[in-house]
Amino acid sequence: MTLETPIGWTAAGEVRLLDQTRLPAEEVWRVCGTVDAMAAAIEELAVRGAPLIGVAGAMGLALALGPEPAGDRDTVLGRLRQAGARLRATRPTAVNLAWAIDRVLRTVEQRDGGGADVARAVRTAADEILAEEQANCRAIGAAGVGLVPDGGVMMTICNAGALATGGIGTATAPFYLAHEAGRRFEVLVPETRPLLQGARLTAWELTRAGIACTLLPDGAIAARLARGDVAFAISGADRIAANGDVANKIGTLGLALAAQHAGIPFYVAAPQSTFDRACPTGREIPIESRAPDEVRCVRGVPTAPPEVAVWNPAFDVTPARLVHGYLTEDGFSREVPRPRRPRP
Amino acid sequence: MTLETPIGWTAAGEVRLLDQTRLPAEEVWRVCGTVDAMAAAIEELAVRGAPLIGVAGAMGLALALGPEPAGDRDTVLGRLRQAGARLRATRPTAVNLAWAIDRVLRTVEQRDGGGADVARAVRTAADEILAEEQANCRAIGAAGVGLVPDGGVMMTICNAGALATGGIGTATAPFYLAHEAGRRFEVLVPETRPLLQGARLTAWELTRAGIACTLLPDGAIAARLARGDVAFAISGADRIAANGDVANKIGTLGLALAAQHAGIPFYVAAPQSTFDRACPTGREIPIESRAPDEVRCVRGVPTAPPEVAVWNPAFDVTPARLVHGYLTEDGFSREVPRPRRPRP
Repeated sequence: MTLETPIGWTAAGEVRLLDQTRLPAEEVWRVCGTVDAMAAAIEELAVRGAPLIGVAGAMGLALALGPEPAGDRDTVLGRLRQAGARLRATRPTAVNLAWAIDRVLRTVEQRDGGGADVARAVRTAADEILAEEQANCRAIGAAGVGLVPDGGVMMTICNAGALATGGIGTATAPFYLAHEAGRRFEVLVPETRPLLQGARLTAWELTRAGIACTLLPDGAIAARLARGDVAFAISGADRIAANGDVANKIGTLGLALAAQHAGIPFYVAAPQSTFDRACPTGREIPIESRAPDEVRCVRGVPTAPPEVAVWNPAFDVTPARLVHGYLTEDGFSREVPRPRRPRP
Repeated sequence: MTLETPIGWTAAGEVRLLDQTRLPAEEVWRVCGTVDAMAAAIEELAVRGAPLIGVAGAMGLALALGPEPAGDRDTVLGRLRQAGARLRATRPTAVNLAWAIDRVLRTVEQRDGGGADVARAVRTAADEILAEEQANCRAIGAAGVGLVPDGGVMMTICNAGALATGGIGTATAPFYLAHEAGRRFEVLVPETRPLLQGARLTAWELTRAGIACTLLPDGAIAARLARGDVAFAISGADRIAANGDVANKIGTLGLALAAQHAGIPFYVAAPQSTFDRACPTGREIPIESRAPDEVRCVRGVPTAPPEVAVWNPAFDVTPARLVHGYLTEDGFSREVPRPRRPRP
């Protein structure tokens, strides 16, 4: 069973999204009717995953206007730009968010028409981004499905799955296509503290799709890979620098080091929109810090002395030399892929 | 403020221990009046840490007898051996447990006397082991205190502290002595899923002692060390093979790999009783598997689909080549230390 797309429009033109903070216990859809509501949903990780927050940012722009916005074209465009700034500030690391917002703004600025035309154009541009992300996921899957051996064991981290993209995921796309092709295999899923996206989201969506998976603590990654029977490790990415350094969920660097120790390849799966060719190396990628209580508590339950200092970056940077290949919508590449099909 | 020894006798000759499963929220002392109660306390990790469960196993033997045991000497020794088998089975990886139980049994077998003499001898032998562990901790600290720079930052994992030993810990001993000497420094503490001994125990005891510490998710270990400002990483050990391979809390291998990547030393602190010279390499160390719900839940709160498969080994094995030195009661050694002072 494939997952319903976790974001869409209501009949009233609001945005509905599957609240990922409530998974796996509950499937609750949250309706965002304003730009602030959408920004809060992104900040609280109700919607997350680099490609999907690009889509969410684009759809969120429409909430600044409604179907029949008041004011002349310039007023409407001004409101749109203001909304873009608010949405862009929610998550500084993921490059897809800024990219998607800029693309929608550029598209509508280039077209003529009054407020209602602008509003329509925003929705159309956002829908195009979602459709492209879904197509990209299948193309990434096609680039990686040949890596998945029948009977094999693989490891991923965090959730770069259907819940992160609106499609079949990036890191998970080869698994979904291999499953469609009737192959049997096992996916190892580290729980991915502090927010447990592996335990809560990846284990949930793979189980729902009928793909065998095994959950493990993040600390067990190195020991599990060292057993020597894992075919490869694969992650998504939040931003990839021009030299191939990868910013992704905290813990990805440890996974890449463990793969190197075990002598197995570590791959990164991401659409071309995740490559930031203006960013020379991983050192220049801004890394978002998150709230200390994410680490002092688990799902609201205190697990540490309440006043203890905490280091809680959302991402780490894996150097390009630890990456054995990149899977994009343009195929598999040992080196940083060229932007062969530059997106508008 | 130093921590009260987390295990001792009640006036009635029962064993009282600080229930480590209730920390940091509550300080609850649990009284064990029978061998089964002590075995359960060890299995549930109410008392844990390789040196301390050796002490607990030794004290637990006394619970098989009481102060005035019925029956002749052979009957009493038989009950003691049966209790030893029950207690030894609780945790298969930690070598200290079997070592402490065997030492008490051997000591009392070598002495004459009736049931009451045996009972007294068991208590005396157990008290000697606790006193030796406390002395060993200070000696380990003395071996390592010179490694702690004033103003430095270090990382440890899990809890190889006062709560694991009854003394000032093994991996933490250099920190306690440096603190006594007036040095200021910071200890980085990964939370150590699944049972969060770093968050719950190490952060608690260091904070209580006035030592600055910072908590981080296990996935953040590699990124934190890669910043390049950490002086060294240090862990305790549950068993060290003859070739120097170290079995310790799951996640220690990842810590050692991250230290190697960052170019900083990784040290192991343990008393001589942790070295199992009959065990040639880490491959021969039995690794205990623990319950899946430790990973599917956090402190009783579900965090994953309830039926998902889980891989939950309690320990991993770090190869000797990743260990830059061993701290024992006999000093600091780059190679596996010789048993210079064989314990009785």
